[in-house]
Amino acid sequence: MKKAIILLSGGIDSTTTLYIAKRRYNLLALIFNYGQRHKKEIECAKKIASLNDVKFYIVKIDLSWVNSSLVNKKINVPLDRNLDTPDIPNTYVPARNIIFLSYAFSLAESLSIKNIFIGAHTQDYSGYPDCRIEFLKKFNEAANLGLKSNDIKIIAPLIDKNKKEIIKIGLKLNVPFRYTWSCYNGFKKPCLRCDSCRFRINAFESLGLKDPLLE
Amino acid sequence: MKKAIILLSGGIDSTTTLYIAKRRYNLLALIFNYGQRHKKEIECAKKIASLNDVKFYIVKIDLSWVNSSLVNKKINVPLDRNLDTPDIPNTYVPARNIIFLSYAFSLAESLSIKNIFIGAHTQDYSGYPDCRIEFLKKFNEAANLGLKSNDIKIIAPLIDKNKKEIIKIGLKLNVPFRYTWSCYNGFKKPCLRCDSCRFRINAFESLGLKDPLLE
Repeated sequence: MKKAIILLSGGIDSTTTLYIAKRRYNLLALIFNYGQRHKKEIECAKKIASLNDVKFYIVKIDLSWVNSSLVNKKINVPLDRNLDTPDIPNTYVPARNIIFLSYAFSLAESLSIKNIFIGAHTQDYSGYPDCRIEFLKKFNEAANLGLKSNDIKIIAPLIDKNKKEIIKIGLKLNVPFRYTWSCYNGFKKPCLRCDSCRFRINAFESLGLKDPLLE
Repeated sequence: MKKAIILLSGGIDSTTTLYIAKRRYNLLALIFNYGQRHKKEIECAKKIASLNDVKFYIVKIDLSWVNSSLVNKKINVPLDRNLDTPDIPNTYVPARNIIFLSYAFSLAESLSIKNIFIGAHTQDYSGYPDCRIEFLKKFNEAANLGLKSNDIKIIAPLIDKNKKEIIKIGLKLNVPFRYTWSCYNGFKKPCLRCDSCRFRINAFESLGLKDPLLE
């Protein structure tokens, strides 16, 4: 089997991406500890990787300058926000995927791996600009210009899917959603009020299902 | 004065870039500790920043997977290499500037800074692909697609200069070259045999000067 790197956050999207990719690729996961307040997702990512015998690196990233509610606990994560607004919320972390992908390209070239999977998709993600296909394409071109190799490929199999469609795909692939984590807050249980919780609950509900994490 | 970020390694190129940039910009330096064997350059970068009242962040970067003689002490830095060969030597660190610039864009957007200075140039640098203008341009486009802001600019004032020309510019600007560091080896004194030492010595000699670091 060919080898691939997967950016694994422990959420629904990257976990489903792992289950798509593992059918055809021997995977190596990159898990990032960037000071996120929902550290629990790191434990989920490790669990998902281990369940699938996927080796992983945990990369520590210092983003102490970032004024995002995801990394700065003095700023509150917005609750009950209007999800239809085009505004980018304060959970946005500038250049997060830019940094994550940079590490992935470094690892890929170092180990002669030609494929990098990412669970990015735009529809549900509050319009984070570094989840857009235009960005991923251009970044892929740029990275290959900056490396010895020129044939490393970013693969985003969920890019045009919404959360409901992603969960449907995941259910077919037996993704253990009970081990995934979405809530932005760092509590023991999901807050059910942040954007990430609500996208998740809404998607499960629209499928007539209860989120297994809540059972 | 406008603000700008500068990637500062403590070598001749980034230090000269700082002296060019400081005439027109209020600078903030990013210094990277990526496990390089020549840690001494970090002290030099701090010294240069302090001499110029430039605030700095030191960012720690884990590149434990990289098989480069710059970060893996089991691999020897090549000595007395033919500098005219087009081969990229084992001092190459995959995606180094890609990662450095990613952090710079994160910092820039976080602090509403629109300019990022980098001392990259191709002529003397053993053909590292992430020092090429083609890469810098494309990466700049990609990063702006992945950010909220779309107007952050990479500025590489030395991109088409060679080491001799850079030193000439630096001398005019009173760059204190005695506080800069180039040697790839982690010794107390420059080894004088690695690529970086030799590019440096050759450049000073071609100007009829002695490297002040060796006095």
